[in-house]
Amino acid sequence: MADVAVTRHTSIAPIDGGVTAPTGFRSAALHCGIKAKAGALDLAVLAVDTFASMAGLFTTNLAQAAPVLVSKRHLDVTRGTGCAIVVNSGCANACTGEEGLANARRMTEEVASALGCEPEQVLVASTGVIGVALPIDRVAAGIQAACSSLAHGKGSEAAQAIMTTDPFPKEHAVRVTTPRGSFSIGAMAKGSGMIEPNMATMLGFIATDAQVAPAMLQRALAESARDTFNAITVDGECSTNDSLFAMASGNSGVAIDEELYPALLDGLLSVSRPLALGIVRGGEGATKVIAVSVYDANTGDEARQVARTVANSPLVKTAVHGADPNWGRIVAAAGRAGVRFDMQRVTVRIGGILLFENGLPHDESAQRAAEILKRDTVDIEISLGAGNASATIWGCDLSAEYVRINGEYRT
Amino acid sequence: MADVAVTRHTSIAPIDGGVTAPTGFRSAALHCGIKAKAGALDLAVLAVDTFASMAGLFTTNLAQAAPVLVSKRHLDVTRGTGCAIVVNSGCANACTGEEGLANARRMTEEVASALGCEPEQVLVASTGVIGVALPIDRVAAGIQAACSSLAHGKGSEAAQAIMTTDPFPKEHAVRVTTPRGSFSIGAMAKGSGMIEPNMATMLGFIATDAQVAPAMLQRALAESARDTFNAITVDGECSTNDSLFAMASGNSGVAIDEELYPALLDGLLSVSRPLALGIVRGGEGATKVIAVSVYDANTGDEARQVARTVANSPLVKTAVHGADPNWGRIVAAAGRAGVRFDMQRVTVRIGGILLFENGLPHDESAQRAAEILKRDTVDIEISLGAGNASATIWGCDLSAEYVRINGEYRT
Repeated sequence: MADVAVTRHTSIAPIDGGVTAPTGFRSAALHCGIKAKAGALDLAVLAVDTFASMAGLFTTNLAQAAPVLVSKRHLDVTRGTGCAIVVNSGCANACTGEEGLANARRMTEEVASALGCEPEQVLVASTGVIGVALPIDRVAAGIQAACSSLAHGKGSEAAQAIMTTDPFPKEHAVRVTTPRGSFSIGAMAKGSGMIEPNMATMLGFIATDAQVAPAMLQRALAESARDTFNAITVDGECSTNDSLFAMASGNSGVAIDEELYPALLDGLLSVSRPLALGIVRGGEGATKVIAVSVYDANTGDEARQVARTVANSPLVKTAVHGADPNWGRIVAAAGRAGVRFDMQRVTVRIGGILLFENGLPHDESAQRAAEILKRDTVDIEISLGAGNASATIWGCDLSAEYVRINGEYRT
Repeated sequence: MADVAVTRHTSIAPIDGGVTAPTGFRSAALHCGIKAKAGALDLAVLAVDTFASMAGLFTTNLAQAAPVLVSKRHLDVTRGTGCAIVVNSGCANACTGEEGLANARRMTEEVASALGCEPEQVLVASTGVIGVALPIDRVAAGIQAACSSLAHGKGSEAAQAIMTTDPFPKEHAVRVTTPRGSFSIGAMAKGSGMIEPNMATMLGFIATDAQVAPAMLQRALAESARDTFNAITVDGECSTNDSLFAMASGNSGVAIDEELYPALLDGLLSVSRPLALGIVRGGEGATKVIAVSVYDANTGDEARQVARTVANSPLVKTAVHGADPNWGRIVAAAGRAGVRFDMQRVTVRIGGILLFENGLPHDESAQRAAEILKRDTVDIEISLGAGNASATIWGCDLSAEYVRINGEYRT
């Protein structure tokens, strides 16, 4: 088991610098005039000094915004190589037809002309209002200005420029030390916030100075996202713009092969997990993070399906909001998840306290569980008593504030 | 097309009397002591004078309450014949283990001994608190008292006895006149209400004096439920106790064969639709009914899947609550329903007003749509531009009151 040995001799430590912590990356962020508020950062460019391997994961929604369509095509055309990512907030460039596609392409063209590469080597992301056209001349001027001010150590400004109504910026970076040298991974993300009239969008950007072939970068991005960015839910919705990008500059000189793949994956998980949890904690109206872990399932997919159904259950979310140890709602949500298991073998725990076993409640423990539910992170643990697979989904509670944010923003 | 001809010559008119409107049925309702409030009706018996064909549909949740397990077995054993249904409110007899199964069987035994039939010829339903044992001695005494006071014309009391915190009782009856004679159908239902600590439960009971073989009654019940009781959603949850029963006494002398089947089906739809809508209108915290109709789908199942995803979308539900004509949320929810279609061919209307077409919004109509959203029933119409199938799902808005009811009832 070479993987385990390498992982055992790999150490991961947090470092400063966010998405530009790895060597070979520069960024710039500025206010180009999409957001109405003067000075509010609404445009960022993240560029690699030479060329990078690039990978992307995108929304599975049938309604895909123009930047998603353009970025997917560019990744196809270049087979995963590129030089920059441009991202704006304040306008999602979604449901904008041919004009929207032209504007998304124009954004990549502006970056390419400023940096001396091909438009196809630039990826693009947008978040904000849908059904509204980008003020493309202001965006183009902003891109030229940003590209002429790219610098190291400015990752935090980029993390602010991608926010919509996120309550706080989300960035993280780590240094991964392996027996064959060390490399860095930095990342930034934005979560679910509302701007009139839109929907939640998740954007994530990861940079590393490891040397990774495009196919392996794509594989590692997908594998790490499965247990981080794809293992969170605020309200079960999936937006038109959700995108997660990774870039690998290779500047560290550490070449990732199968032997070092576990180290890369561990590093990606280390930067992605706090960002994903930050998105949940910053979810609309959320007051608590709920970690739903399902154990002893037949397969990982079945574990994820049960965990996701419980994490999205309005009755479970409201019970946690009210600090009510309502095992019955957890049992009922698990039972409607579309996975076969024997309810008699199921156990339900909240924060380790057994509340349901052998088809019967342990109501004597309810008061202790209610105390645990007052914390700002709540663990719900469900054993299906079937197999050996497990999975965790992170969600949040459902509050009256969620209804207010999403129902009354026009008033 | 004999079916069409018969349907054309069938008339359906509402009548009084609820579930005991058809001839051959008697009912009784009383307070046996499950509910704490003195005099609150919590037990009902619905009996047929001789023997009836019986049919049932039950929750698909893996967690099934004792009365569900017992009723399913009784229907199997008798192949759909019986003499009575007994139902209590205030206690769901769910997650109660062997004792719960014994108590559910005991309820059928008490009815059988009082009426002179076999326990297997009695069905049972419960709704209310889960994880708590029935006060079975009080229930048994109540059943004996109820069986000795069975009478015609007391359906409305039964409709009250099955309520938990439903804001109003739900009953309806119709007279179906066919070229071969007339028969009646009466029904009562309860919807989603909360009693500490439980989950929503839907119970429905339909009686008819048509003469219907058990297999045909089961088929008609399933077919009518697909577009009524199974086409509603309050919060996407599915309880441990959901049950829908039908009884056919045959007292009218009108024998339902394939030729008259459409008349039976129309009658079942006529009584079921207002009850199903009543459940939605009485949903927890609901202030509006949302009818989501999907047209031009490839199949009925695909139409239902898209409609259900939109009706359950928290962002759509909160937008309707806030009278916000947010076509973007409707498009995004349809796009993540797991059904393949071409988003460019989709149209979205609210109350007939076109808001989205050819991938682009019609924002000039937003103000008129916002006015329509202030009504207490809102139609959302989505054409997928694919095939000829359609379906409607009825849901409700999501209000801060829903969160309060389900999150704060212990405080």
